[in-house]
Amino acid sequence: MNQDYIQPDNWSIIEEGFDVERVKSSESLFSIGNGAMGQRANFEEYYSGKTFQGSYIAGIYYPDKTKVGWWKNGYPEYFAKVLNAPNWIGIDIEINGENLDLAKCQSVSNFRRELNMKEGIYYRSFDAVLANGTEIAVKVQRFLSLDLDEVGVINYEITALNSDAKIVFKPYVDAGVHNEDANWEEKFWEPISVKHSGNEAFVTARTFKTHFTATTFMQNSVLLEGSSLSVAPVSVQETKDKIQFSYEVAVAKGQTTTIQKIGGYTVSMNHDDTILGAKKSIAKALEIGVSQLTENQKQAWARIWEMSDITIDGDVKAQQGIRFNIFQLNQTYLGKDSRLNIGPKGFTGEKYGGSTYWDTEAYCIPFYMATKDQQVARNLLAYRYNQLDKAIENAEKLGFKNGAALYPMVTMNGEECHNEWEITFEEIHRNGAIAFAIYNYYRFTGDYSYIPEKGLEVLIGIARFWHQRATFSTYRNQYVILGVTGPNEYENNVNNNWYTNYIAKWCIDYTVAQIQRIEGEYPSDYTRIMNKVKLSQAEISAMKKVADNMYFPYSEEHGVYLQQDGFLDKELITVADLDKSQRPINQKWSWDRILRSPYIKQADTLQGFYFFEDHFTKEELEKHFDFYEPFTVHESSLSPCVHSIQAAVLGRMEQAYTFYLRTSRLDLDDYNKEVEEGLHITSMAGTWMSIVEGFGGMRVRNNQLHFEPKIPVQWKGYSFKVNFRNAIVKVEVRQEGTNVSIEGNSDVEVFVNGESQLIK
Amino acid sequence: MNQDYIQPDNWSIIEEGFDVERVKSSESLFSIGNGAMGQRANFEEYYSGKTFQGSYIAGIYYPDKTKVGWWKNGYPEYFAKVLNAPNWIGIDIEINGENLDLAKCQSVSNFRRELNMKEGIYYRSFDAVLANGTEIAVKVQRFLSLDLDEVGVINYEITALNSDAKIVFKPYVDAGVHNEDANWEEKFWEPISVKHSGNEAFVTARTFKTHFTATTFMQNSVLLEGSSLSVAPVSVQETKDKIQFSYEVAVAKGQTTTIQKIGGYTVSMNHDDTILGAKKSIAKALEIGVSQLTENQKQAWARIWEMSDITIDGDVKAQQGIRFNIFQLNQTYLGKDSRLNIGPKGFTGEKYGGSTYWDTEAYCIPFYMATKDQQVARNLLAYRYNQLDKAIENAEKLGFKNGAALYPMVTMNGEECHNEWEITFEEIHRNGAIAFAIYNYYRFTGDYSYIPEKGLEVLIGIARFWHQRATFSTYRNQYVILGVTGPNEYENNVNNNWYTNYIAKWCIDYTVAQIQRIEGEYPSDYTRIMNKVKLSQAEISAMKKVADNMYFPYSEEHGVYLQQDGFLDKELITVADLDKSQRPINQKWSWDRILRSPYIKQADTLQGFYFFEDHFTKEELEKHFDFYEPFTVHESSLSPCVHSIQAAVLGRMEQAYTFYLRTSRLDLDDYNKEVEEGLHITSMAGTWMSIVEGFGGMRVRNNQLHFEPKIPVQWKGYSFKVNFRNAIVKVEVRQEGTNVSIEGNSDVEVFVNGESQLIK
Repeated sequence: MNQDYIQPDNWSIIEEGFDVERVKSSESLFSIGNGAMGQRANFEEYYSGKTFQGSYIAGIYYPDKTKVGWWKNGYPEYFAKVLNAPNWIGIDIEINGENLDLAKCQSVSNFRRELNMKEGIYYRSFDAVLANGTEIAVKVQRFLSLDLDEVGVINYEITALNSDAKIVFKPYVDAGVHNEDANWEEKFWEPISVKHSGNEAFVTARTFKTHFTATTFMQNSVLLEGSSLSVAPVSVQETKDKIQFSYEVAVAKGQTTTIQKIGGYTVSMNHDDTILGAKKSIAKALEIGVSQLTENQKQAWARIWEMSDITIDGDVKAQQGIRFNIFQLNQTYLGKDSRLNIGPKGFTGEKYGGSTYWDTEAYCIPFYMATKDQQVARNLLAYRYNQLDKAIENAEKLGFKNGAALYPMVTMNGEECHNEWEITFEEIHRNGAIAFAIYNYYRFTGDYSYIPEKGLEVLIGIARFWHQRATFSTYRNQYVILGVTGPNEYENNVNNNWYTNYIAKWCIDYTVAQIQRIEGEYPSDYTRIMNKVKLSQAEISAMKKVADNMYFPYSEEHGVYLQQDGFLDKELITVADLDKSQRPINQKWSWDRILRSPYIKQADTLQGFYFFEDHFTKEELEKHFDFYEPFTVHESSLSPCVHSIQAAVLGRMEQAYTFYLRTSRLDLDDYNKEVEEGLHITSMAGTWMSIVEGFGGMRVRNNQLHFEPKIPVQWKGYSFKVNFRNAIVKVEVRQEGTNVSIEGNSDVEVFVNGESQLIK
Repeated sequence: MNQDYIQPDNWSIIEEGFDVERVKSSESLFSIGNGAMGQRANFEEYYSGKTFQGSYIAGIYYPDKTKVGWWKNGYPEYFAKVLNAPNWIGIDIEINGENLDLAKCQSVSNFRRELNMKEGIYYRSFDAVLANGTEIAVKVQRFLSLDLDEVGVINYEITALNSDAKIVFKPYVDAGVHNEDANWEEKFWEPISVKHSGNEAFVTARTFKTHFTATTFMQNSVLLEGSSLSVAPVSVQETKDKIQFSYEVAVAKGQTTTIQKIGGYTVSMNHDDTILGAKKSIAKALEIGVSQLTENQKQAWARIWEMSDITIDGDVKAQQGIRFNIFQLNQTYLGKDSRLNIGPKGFTGEKYGGSTYWDTEAYCIPFYMATKDQQVARNLLAYRYNQLDKAIENAEKLGFKNGAALYPMVTMNGEECHNEWEITFEEIHRNGAIAFAIYNYYRFTGDYSYIPEKGLEVLIGIARFWHQRATFSTYRNQYVILGVTGPNEYENNVNNNWYTNYIAKWCIDYTVAQIQRIEGEYPSDYTRIMNKVKLSQAEISAMKKVADNMYFPYSEEHGVYLQQDGFLDKELITVADLDKSQRPINQKWSWDRILRSPYIKQADTLQGFYFFEDHFTKEELEKHFDFYEPFTVHESSLSPCVHSIQAAVLGRMEQAYTFYLRTSRLDLDDYNKEVEEGLHITSMAGTWMSIVEGFGGMRVRNNQLHFEPKIPVQWKGYSFKVNFRNAIVKVEVRQEGTNVSIEGNSDVEVFVNGESQLIK
């Protein structure tokens, strides 16, 4: 654990005391989002200290020109990244002629942030003594509305503590923003227009190249002692991409003045006329009113929690951790729009370009599938179906043909947005997770219709890729897969990564089985699809031959599948025997040293055992876990959750609990020393899995839902709900025993430790 | 062969006819240099067509900020590259009010370039009809003086063909240049001063960061019908980094006017006051006079050719090829200055940053060793000795310790200047070539003194590196070397590259043997060195253990050492069976596809057989040649020469001859479709080797020089000279037999086909 300033609390993330060194970290941790937009917890008022400004609009990206040292054929020319969006939260404050800047005050006391996850509201308050001696108390409340998802609301209160004061509020909207990770220091936004009328202002800007138009808007009301002043701005400052109002309020000692700022974005993805859209949004928000909007926000979050909450008794840090994870996932993606997906940093930072990774299929879909309507998971699957043509084009760039599809490692719009050859071209296992998610969706929801409708085409493209990508080794008389990077990115360009070979074989087998099923059960879909993809029996036989004769590296000596052909050549020194000063190795070692070490960034062979648990015995799992776990450094956020689940399966509850804490409090406690850059959103779904699938032991077997609950000794109990085939199954696990209640679909059968649970 | 416009000629490179599409190619092919500076064959007069401007000063570099997509620990922050130097050759021409621009003339006829390699002079001539109808004939002669190596001379003649003409010569010097390969479009030169006096001008500029100061100078004389006009410029145009004179001459129809421009650079590496240095250079040049300077140039080149020429009878293209190679090597490096080295593109382009690669040790040293005084090769060795501390620092960055040295892949000043992890961190075999060159120098020159003086410290640093870099595989019970890139850069991050393992073992063995010899024969050097490097007997034993137990991958089935552990897993389709449309694969295939293919960019295992030929039988060589040659695509310029030598050893003369043509005319015929970017200088030394060591069969055995001459059927004969231990050995091979003459050191013994040759 590397930081511990966040106060333990069941429902809130709380920081107390002002520390300039924590500002960027807290900007990440207190981020808010509503699925359509999100923002780091930057201060509204000007701040001259170290800060990382970030506001993001879902689906708005920019193709930054690729930056590489040495160009290699097949690299994308452009690299889509999430855009830092215009700022609508800014409110400069002037008090008795001096600007409020927390970095420049004589003193700041009672500084407190609270992100109330139950309500979906972010609070900040502090007392400050300005350089000119004026003492003030400030209370701020901010949220992004779930109901009106183009709208955010700020309530900013200032109380004059030691004298009368002239307070100037200077709210603004500003499109003059840039990305910290811009490759060429280019501007991404082109200003189009700046308009204002009364207390409303609109800055419209268009992204270069992608030509998304966004209007960033604000509407301001000023209050004194809670009563509206009905004032207009005393002055308006305009540049080509920014507009700022000034409101002056004379406040007597002890009095409180408030600015209520309604702001947000309307974008051309949703509006023909974004300014008109913005005006309508403001009107709607004003009609509801700030107070009712706030109430609605709490109710909307209550509805989310109703289904997705996990309770933990007797361990407040564990409770806070899981709720933080569930909260952030829901802030990032709500499943309303199939054009959107889940970036590894959500709306909390720029790194990883805000794009879609295999994380969505491998980690996020199970969470959304179980805690939302099945349509949400279906939308996530459809996202890939809609990008199938681009995946085929992507494979063509790498020399594949005839409809073989390679999904990009990273994408915003279906095109590859990554450019390290060992990952872009070689981390091809991502294709496997995309196929697995289709199977997983059907297994959990029971909804087969997706496969004839859309899924089979994706499966065929993927199976074709694996067929063409395998090489027949005359030497082994089997098919091998050469030159790949597995989930463990600390090995590059290896031969026969077990996970990749295994999922490749599985993809082909699963695809062929679905072709047969659809031929029998959905003949018209079969005909439509086969006419489209032109898959011959000869091709099916050829791909089946690859699956049937796939090579898997295995060590007789150790009784385990080898992560890759060369694994045993390595010096097998365990992580426990590695000097702590060398950790994390990705910050301490050069790349070649990492590559030739045995250290595993994230579950790789064990990831395969996670996906295909039922293909192996518990003894096999144990053997592999005992072999690989000691070499795993978990320097990927996606790793500890899988190990937590497997430790739980093996009954190693202390280890499972340790991994659980690591995954659930990864960001709160900043294990990997990088929370300043943003949160690890996608791995948060892994945290959810480590409770539901790990401790709860949830599995689907024979179309039935099974639980084998276990409980860490630290806990009195825990509970969660899942939506299994439209039955809402609530599981309450206590040290004394497990209680299951089921509502809805009465066809489903649920078992606890093998015993059927009647529907109550 | 991809182009054939260069006219065959024994002593000259000749182009006839003007073709805008050939301009950039010819700018490379007609490049001139004198070891201290060099330049592409850009036109003196303004040219609006496609051109690649390039002038370079030896030793002047700039640390460009490294550009990578994804940073990895150990990458250098800066990346030294050769600088495009200020332009001193420019002479804008105005005729009857119109600018001469070959891209804009009504017609250009009789266009001819000739690079006379015997004289070291570049000629260009053409007739042109300008848009205004004026017809002129132009003759230009240019050279960079070998005697005064800061000075170049241009003689530019214009004859008015169809009318009287007012001709304005506008010679200039200009520091406002940039690099085409600049990473961030930064300026590299900061202007310091612009001065002029009479017909002389001086632009002084300083490189940013490295702070090299260079004065670029010119002195102009104008003649009419061969008589000096003693005129001063009619006007002078100055900016902060450029100065341009104008001279006006009224020419009657049929008359000829000439501008003689003396120009060049003086740099702060050699002068405290570069302007004063420039004035002295001009004064010296004027004192000698253009006519005598030209005569001196021819004599200086005659002295070079006297020793380094190779004659070939009966095959003008082969003759032209080898002379072009020898000429370019001598233009690039003359061995006068141990601060300098040989960049892969010499002074002919920017690519590869003009830096030093292992090419110097593996390819160039044999050429310089045999055709120059041994001090030249010693200077090249000392270059690495002088950079030993930085090689140790470089190894430390990658986690090595205790004096282990890893020489950079690419360097200007000892620091690593390359940033692809698979090469920078993994193409570590370069260390082996640097050790091999020390051995090779001693073997050929008989001068052991270099090793106790300097070489042993380098050897110990390198041996320590290999010792630490090897990994003990308990699985194999041998030492392995994991995660390397061999000379074949079409495989990355492989395990147990045979070449690397072999040269690593050899380096340790050779180092330990030299330690023992120096302990016995040079006790005071021994004490000095051991006190400095603190090498214990225990460390020596430990490193010897690695060498004695090194693993070499071997295939019983094929009877060959395997290029690397995974080679046999590949689909072994020969180059002959690869569709021609797929070649060159580095332009057609994505990187992953190249990596999993069996195709070899350049000799790898065979490179080892070349270095260590006497460790293997001819049968073993044949077996390996027959196994690897069919997979070799020779997409590195460094490859065909090694294959040519080995084909000759195996008596396959037709194949040897084909490879010889490919290496010797690589640039003239533009085999790799990239000559526009510059010439392949370092591989030219390989061409020399393919005659002397391949056809000539030159070997040093038991301190004696042996020849086993062979001759391609296409040739009547060939001859070359080598300086072996201060004996000048001239070998003339004809279809009828071989004649050897020896001058100088009478201690040396020379054998032809095993028969001793008496000194005549």
